[in-house]
Amino acid sequence: MEIRNVISSDYNVISPLINEWWGGRQMSDMLPKLFFVHFNNTSFIAEIDGEIVGFLIGFLSQSDTDVAYIHFVGVNPEYRKKLIGKQLYNEFFNEVIKNNRNVVRAVTSPVNKVSIAYHTKMGFNIDNGDKVVDGVSVFSDYDGPNQDRVLFVKRID
Amino acid sequence: MEIRNVISSDYNVISPLINEWWGGRQMSDMLPKLFFVHFNNTSFIAEIDGEIVGFLIGFLSQSDTDVAYIHFVGVNPEYRKKLIGKQLYNEFFNEVIKNNRNVVRAVTSPVNKVSIAYHTKMGFNIDNGDKVVDGVSVFSDYDGPNQDRVLFVKRID
Repeated sequence: MEIRNVISSDYNVISPLINEWWGGRQMSDMLPKLFFVHFNNTSFIAEIDGEIVGFLIGFLSQSDTDVAYIHFVGVNPEYRKKLIGKQLYNEFFNEVIKNNRNVVRAVTSPVNKVSIAYHTKMGFNIDNGDKVVDGVSVFSDYDGPNQDRVLFVKRID
Repeated sequence: MEIRNVISSDYNVISPLINEWWGGRQMSDMLPKLFFVHFNNTSFIAEIDGEIVGFLIGFLSQSDTDVAYIHFVGVNPEYRKKLIGKQLYNEFFNEVIKNNRNVVRAVTSPVNKVSIAYHTKMGFNIDNGDKVVDGVSVFSDYDGPNQDRVLFVKRID
């Protein structure tokens, strides 16, 4: 497997795959092309024999110069359990360290139990929200009305 | 009217208003909270007597150090024709200049004739796409399948 930086034309390959990789959930609206155009240096593609099997879209916070943010990570379901996600996260962490930042943040939906378990396993902590859902602290209406979210944070120093 | 930088809690006020300001179009998915958290220094709020009447969400491209990008601009329909949008754009342009950048980019849907007319009036040029729709050059499938887009660019040196 090879990991490289995102280029904008990767979007044409990945965008049609997203809803499929997410088991039919309507996810592609969350990923406009701008993320593939303007955050190339902190976003990564995993390829096997020239086929894209995973990607991570992240950026450096402009508001907080110690923070980097992971917006979206996807792995082809046929290639799960091969540590592709872990390698993408590690590549991102290395880039964050190169940029002299120590804090990585990410956000997910409370329904996404796989993501919650995954981030916990990767050493992310969960910020204390205003309620607890299935044992997980959650921020109500974080991404708009009825859009509760779980907030992850990991220090990488 | 006052213009100030965005703070993350502005999202709680603006998010429920967005679909209403856009005449019922489902727009709020395009604006997750992350834009109100991580791009404060290049995003602005217009207020009259403490009421939010407009906002501009923009950021500095991480890929191209000469480029800044405007993601989303909204003005309360009851406060249109008062140059609120123009003042928000100018505030953004000033911040872009402060950051030693010369190129501002933005993207819109071909159906959004108001946005196309507005950006043209503001001195944006339209990039040459791969087809022409109603006299405007358009990039097919730019933001995913069947999501054509018009690309604007303006030099501010």
